[in-house]
Amino acid sequence: MNKIEVCLTPELIHQHDLNGKVVVVVDIFRATSCIVTGLAHGITAIKPVGGVDETLELGRQGFVTAGERGGQKVDGFDMGNSPYEYMDEDLIGRKVAISTTNGSQAVLKSLDADEILVGAFLNLSATAVYLANSGKDVVVHCAGWKGAVNIEDTLYAGALIHWLKDTHTLSGDSAFLASQLYQANASDLLKMAKESSHAHRLAGFGVIKDIAFCVEIDTYDAIIALREDLLVRI
Amino acid sequence: MNKIEVCLTPELIHQHDLNGKVVVVVDIFRATSCIVTGLAHGITAIKPVGGVDETLELGRQGFVTAGERGGQKVDGFDMGNSPYEYMDEDLIGRKVAISTTNGSQAVLKSLDADEILVGAFLNLSATAVYLANSGKDVVVHCAGWKGAVNIEDTLYAGALIHWLKDTHTLSGDSAFLASQLYQANASDLLKMAKESSHAHRLAGFGVIKDIAFCVEIDTYDAIIALREDLLVRI
Repeated sequence: MNKIEVCLTPELIHQHDLNGKVVVVVDIFRATSCIVTGLAHGITAIKPVGGVDETLELGRQGFVTAGERGGQKVDGFDMGNSPYEYMDEDLIGRKVAISTTNGSQAVLKSLDADEILVGAFLNLSATAVYLANSGKDVVVHCAGWKGAVNIEDTLYAGALIHWLKDTHTLSGDSAFLASQLYQANASDLLKMAKESSHAHRLAGFGVIKDIAFCVEIDTYDAIIALREDLLVRI
Repeated sequence: MNKIEVCLTPELIHQHDLNGKVVVVVDIFRATSCIVTGLAHGITAIKPVGGVDETLELGRQGFVTAGERGGQKVDGFDMGNSPYEYMDEDLIGRKVAISTTNGSQAVLKSLDADEILVGAFLNLSATAVYLANSGKDVVVHCAGWKGAVNIEDTLYAGALIHWLKDTHTLSGDSAFLASQLYQANASDLLKMAKESSHAHRLAGFGVIKDIAFCVEIDTYDAIIALREDLLVRI
């Protein structure tokens, strides 16, 4: 059996040895849900970017610019951080540069891994099957919220543990916590996800529809991985 | 209603504003369980100390020296970190200096708070009643294991949330996670605590008896708080 660990926030990622492992970065509300959606709908590649200025520079080079700070669209960006924006047919064949409060940063903090995937409930089974066949240990890297642990990413970690139970044993207490959270709430993910402080924050922006969309399981059969510095469908 | 937050490891304590709040430091296996036990059995005061050298210096000044590194007694210390050692009648009326891998450090990182308590399952109700009457917000500061989140301290946080449900509402996703963990496992804390990686580690040292002792609820009616730089029964 391989192992699966969970890092509950990027602030704890230094406690995990990523060498030789596959990292799955997750930011359910909403960066990785957007990335999965966009690449499933025909965006060619998405480049995770740290800063706003760098994103705007990529915009001048032909990238569509996307992202948020504090949950809201950045002035000057083409798109915000709602998965529905990523379904736009005008984006088919385009490259997008995305900079978000938590998600992009988590990708950039995972570069020591053998391979980086991007996960969401939307592509849970596709990701799980790929990992089950990888023969490698897995670290789920929860993007959290400004360094803090959050419910929705932890819930995803627990779901992935459950999906990988035949090939990966859980390793460490954070994985155990995530697994417990998922098992206690598997029957109603949406109810649990709505308890998240971030869901409350998002609800304040009127994006209830996004929350419901982001906790749907297996909407897409897309595996998303970082190749060079671009996230692509593999 | 007041609020109760949970900090899952000392590495995340900077995310919490401790000002005006009561912090409850918890390190179930085994520092705070030892501290509660010792003060309940007649030790006069326990001084949490960061380093081994400082502890040895306090030993030369008349303190009994206690503590561990990596779960095992430090060479040259009078005592290790088993709660049974803290029941010794020879300790009645003595002062103890304690330095542990996680627990002492968590106390020393909580000094911005209005008041610091030390909690364990062993004095859960006594602590909860004091907090309920305090009229203040509470932060549970889980000592964890070398910076990582652990099950047993998170479980205690969830229990304290449950005990305070009439006076304190939970605040933040970590508090929500802790509460969920406790509720899913309230009927068998020992079973859950044994799943902890630290419990596995301790079992390797032959201290199964300590684990069972540390998850007993309300063995002592002692409230423990930091006064100046000493932990005392109040």
